[in-house]
Amino acid sequence: MKFLRYGPAGAEKPGLLAKDGTIRDLSGQIADLSGPVLAPDALAKLGAIDVNTLPVVDGSPRIGPCVAGTGKFVCIGLNYSDHAAETGAAVPPEPVIFMKATSAIVGPDDDVLIPRGSEKTDWEVELGVVIGKTAKYVSEADALDYVAGYCVSHDVSERAFQAERSGQWTKGKSCDTFGPIGPWLVTKDEIADPQDLPMWLKVNGETRQDGSTKTMVYGVAFLVSYLSQFMSLHPGDVISTGTPPGVGMGQKPPRYLKPGDVVELGIEGLGTQKQTFRADA
Amino acid sequence: MKFLRYGPAGAEKPGLLAKDGTIRDLSGQIADLSGPVLAPDALAKLGAIDVNTLPVVDGSPRIGPCVAGTGKFVCIGLNYSDHAAETGAAVPPEPVIFMKATSAIVGPDDDVLIPRGSEKTDWEVELGVVIGKTAKYVSEADALDYVAGYCVSHDVSERAFQAERSGQWTKGKSCDTFGPIGPWLVTKDEIADPQDLPMWLKVNGETRQDGSTKTMVYGVAFLVSYLSQFMSLHPGDVISTGTPPGVGMGQKPPRYLKPGDVVELGIEGLGTQKQTFRADA
Repeated sequence: MKFLRYGPAGAEKPGLLAKDGTIRDLSGQIADLSGPVLAPDALAKLGAIDVNTLPVVDGSPRIGPCVAGTGKFVCIGLNYSDHAAETGAAVPPEPVIFMKATSAIVGPDDDVLIPRGSEKTDWEVELGVVIGKTAKYVSEADALDYVAGYCVSHDVSERAFQAERSGQWTKGKSCDTFGPIGPWLVTKDEIADPQDLPMWLKVNGETRQDGSTKTMVYGVAFLVSYLSQFMSLHPGDVISTGTPPGVGMGQKPPRYLKPGDVVELGIEGLGTQKQTFRADA
Repeated sequence: MKFLRYGPAGAEKPGLLAKDGTIRDLSGQIADLSGPVLAPDALAKLGAIDVNTLPVVDGSPRIGPCVAGTGKFVCIGLNYSDHAAETGAAVPPEPVIFMKATSAIVGPDDDVLIPRGSEKTDWEVELGVVIGKTAKYVSEADALDYVAGYCVSHDVSERAFQAERSGQWTKGKSCDTFGPIGPWLVTKDEIADPQDLPMWLKVNGETRQDGSTKTMVYGVAFLVSYLSQFMSLHPGDVISTGTPPGVGMGQKPPRYLKPGDVVELGIEGLGTQKQTFRADA
């Protein structure tokens, strides 16, 4: 199933995308896509509802972040060997993990604000993993049992804030609007292999990233297990699993985003995002 | 005023500490110490209630984290020049910021779990700053207007996870129970100068840290302003402002915590914490 949240920012309602392309309202069934609702069996129960009994949502509402109640937005750095190479870094012997502020989360098509003083705002298409059940010290073999599903995640990054301002990376990753997630939370039964998903990103119509989760160094099951050795993962937590090559800082010469630029990105089976970048007020 | 939260973990009620030493129940006034309740004028209104009209809480309930709804737990690294020296690091030209997972937050006297595989679990007494109003691009002169108050924060750290496991620091800072905050949220009118607060920490009764916020490199007002240039700070967000010298990794030879160790810490005017460390199951 493809779950989503629609409506004005801060007042989103839960819904699902029906096979006929319409959005169906789930607010009669659940308050939001958060907490216990995200457990794989709870999502399966929701998906078993006869979609024809669910109200059709009229028009084209704004799409919000595809999950609510995100307590942690954990990101993996340098998780594609060819991306590590373009940044001049070696592939790390263990995953590099950093946090993105949850206050950065926005909908997939919301405007992204280039922060004051930024000259190096950059793009990163990533596979997002949404946690469905609390995971602590779980094995790699069991790890996917704790996953609700997948989404597109745009790990917008300010490279000077990230790397030239005394550290740590979170400083360049946490700006308001730097975390578009969605459009959909796609349950894992729809994704045959999370390690075989083509992904792409365009800036003003020109392809910049064209990769696949095939070339991830540490795969989804490993990451969920690995992170759960350091901290409990809770329902609604999101893991953004790293980006393939083609980011702005890797271009020769580097290219960064400016007000008016339009970024489109997508992952096969998970939908697409489209953001206009503008200067923060 | 000294606000607090009491009761079983996950079901805390809001209260305040009366001048007679009793805890008074505020659950008739507010649902919790979170969100708009934390605005300085809202707290002042709560503080203006005749304390004799508030029910006395019987017994000695568990004290929970002193604030709820924390979306971000932002920490400052190497913010005391003498602590930077003991770790072998230079004082950074700008604040080093990293995130602690909010899932690490516990009450001030709860047990702290030494994670599986840990050999370098360490202590750090810190001044915590609780945000009361959304702050974005605020000046240093205005910064304290956005602060609800202060608390004791124990930035428990696993040094091997932090520094020897491929980075970033958040990996050694986010383990479950690594973030005791409280006992009280002390409103800023009670703290004449946040840059003149003696602070201390003992392990099994022996003093390990004995410092003062006087020697902070970047003060509270600067930090609130600085962080707000990178991300909006929201009510309930906590900033842990760094630790003075005396941490375990700075001892010669280094000393770390083991199951059964008892750590006590405090900051003048903000109360004390006491934790027993034990092995995570």
